[in-house]
Amino acid sequence: MNYRNDLILRAARGEKTERTPVWMMRQAGRILPEYREVRAQAGDFKTLVETPELAAEVTIQPVDILGVDAAIIFSDILVIPDAMGCTYEMVEARGPVFPQTIRSEADLKQIHIADPTELQYVTDAIALTVKQLDGRVPLIGFAGAPFTIFAYMTEGKGSKTFSIAKKLLYADPSFAHKLLGMITQSTIAYLKAQIAAGAAMVQLFDSWAGILSPAQYREFSGVYIREICAAITEVPVTIFAKGAWFALEDFGGYPCRTVGLDWNTDPAWARQLVGKDKTLQGNLDPCQLYASPELVTAATHQMLDQFAGGPHIANLGHGVYPDTPVDSVKAFIEAVKSYSKA
Amino acid sequence: MNYRNDLILRAARGEKTERTPVWMMRQAGRILPEYREVRAQAGDFKTLVETPELAAEVTIQPVDILGVDAAIIFSDILVIPDAMGCTYEMVEARGPVFPQTIRSEADLKQIHIADPTELQYVTDAIALTVKQLDGRVPLIGFAGAPFTIFAYMTEGKGSKTFSIAKKLLYADPSFAHKLLGMITQSTIAYLKAQIAAGAAMVQLFDSWAGILSPAQYREFSGVYIREICAAITEVPVTIFAKGAWFALEDFGGYPCRTVGLDWNTDPAWARQLVGKDKTLQGNLDPCQLYASPELVTAATHQMLDQFAGGPHIANLGHGVYPDTPVDSVKAFIEAVKSYSKA
Repeated sequence: MNYRNDLILRAARGEKTERTPVWMMRQAGRILPEYREVRAQAGDFKTLVETPELAAEVTIQPVDILGVDAAIIFSDILVIPDAMGCTYEMVEARGPVFPQTIRSEADLKQIHIADPTELQYVTDAIALTVKQLDGRVPLIGFAGAPFTIFAYMTEGKGSKTFSIAKKLLYADPSFAHKLLGMITQSTIAYLKAQIAAGAAMVQLFDSWAGILSPAQYREFSGVYIREICAAITEVPVTIFAKGAWFALEDFGGYPCRTVGLDWNTDPAWARQLVGKDKTLQGNLDPCQLYASPELVTAATHQMLDQFAGGPHIANLGHGVYPDTPVDSVKAFIEAVKSYSKA
Repeated sequence: MNYRNDLILRAARGEKTERTPVWMMRQAGRILPEYREVRAQAGDFKTLVETPELAAEVTIQPVDILGVDAAIIFSDILVIPDAMGCTYEMVEARGPVFPQTIRSEADLKQIHIADPTELQYVTDAIALTVKQLDGRVPLIGFAGAPFTIFAYMTEGKGSKTFSIAKKLLYADPSFAHKLLGMITQSTIAYLKAQIAAGAAMVQLFDSWAGILSPAQYREFSGVYIREICAAITEVPVTIFAKGAWFALEDFGGYPCRTVGLDWNTDPAWARQLVGKDKTLQGNLDPCQLYASPELVTAATHQMLDQFAGGPHIANLGHGVYPDTPVDSVKAFIEAVKSYSKA
């Protein structure tokens, strides 16, 4: 595929680019009134995720409206447990809830390694999006990192501590590794299907990385992320592990191309740990976008300066919050484009 | 006051001790059946906090039953906003809720700098506890760090992101500093009253430190923690800032004696950042206590080895979880005592 704007792919490969590419985690959905219209049309969140025409539409909105340098397919990391037979419901104002959790070897009989054909609604949405984008910008595919998916499948809902999930790591590590292995196999096949459908890069989200100790992270999360990175040879892979500052040095040795940083992480320090070769992504605090556009612009310039000296993809340090003013979002994107060109 | 066991005070002063002292955050309450009986007798959480006889009773329980080297007064960090005029309710299975939040300069008129006499139920509980402990072990007093209290007073409830609180830091920093200043003044007077009543050490809990960027942490949290440390010259001060690994080097320069580490933090790395003079506290993962007593013992030995080479107070890396098996808790405490003596 030839892209009219392939800045992000070149930056991900570590090449020098004429300016820094920019996109935002959670850019598809949440902040745009145009998204909320499609969401209302779909009725509920899962219907939107599972309807390729609507998912493609909200995926492309930020490219049209905000001018980002990449689209990311509108979907959810929880489609993997869903396809494995551990279904979730999205409860308004509460988040995902799993009626049946997986907490023991016996429970593993209820689930299976997902076949990508069970997630055809995602690959169809990707194919449709790529067709409609028509080479304007690349499309990013994604999945949850196995530990984060494990945390939801065992805990059964969101949690501040995920103490049920963590308890299982200590109390039944053999079961934990079996479930993590099944999630990993499902995820590799799923990401390969996304790439076959047209995803030009993929990102792994380890949203709950920060609840593990460094040793536990290596054993129960890092090893599976590495396995996925090694299996995905077709396109550049990005790892975003929120709160896992203690794993940055490890990521530097993984067969991935880009390491995403959350807003707690000093870019110069991360560069030392990750090494010179990889691309860094991030990391403006999404709450910074609550400030006036002038302050957002100044903070974005400062952030770009901190990443100077190595390949960089500009982004926030976490997903954009739903009530973020669109003007500040636009100020962020414009500031990256103009300042990094100069 | 002469203590029969003053290990923790000597360790906090950086002196060599015959073995490592040990206590657990949240040791008073939650895990012991004896606590749950007193809790039931009190009826609700706030009554227990506000009744000196009952608070003293549950404070002393872990000294009697678990053999820890210090008591920590049973209370809540939210008594400060309560005394300032921003009252909270403790809602079962949901946590604290503030009917009136403080989000603007105008809202500041609803509150005042708390006078310690408004928190006499705490100082009475401390005096009673010290009397009943009768020199067995020292009693630790505590307060929330100003930013964490600010987060609750503005957000109005617990939150994963505290995005309302953080938004105010960016959108109205002048208001934020005014409220933080009022909390800081309230906290200094409150801690001094705790010390006058008999607290032999005090700890500041910055539970939500980890949601700030390093620069923001310095501006909106660190500066006030430092101010409190400088004001409390009577007894050793401990800082425990969960998730604020990026502030460890700063803490090394603060006028405090002990720096607590969460379970994400490698003790040897923290020692380099904090420096040789201070005492480190921590940091077994509280979820480790879900494992068998044998595994807990092994993990505790490993943790003690990691802290070797500098003054250390053994603890968990966060508060003990309510459903932790008491046998594993005892295994942790015994393992610290026997292994560090050998």
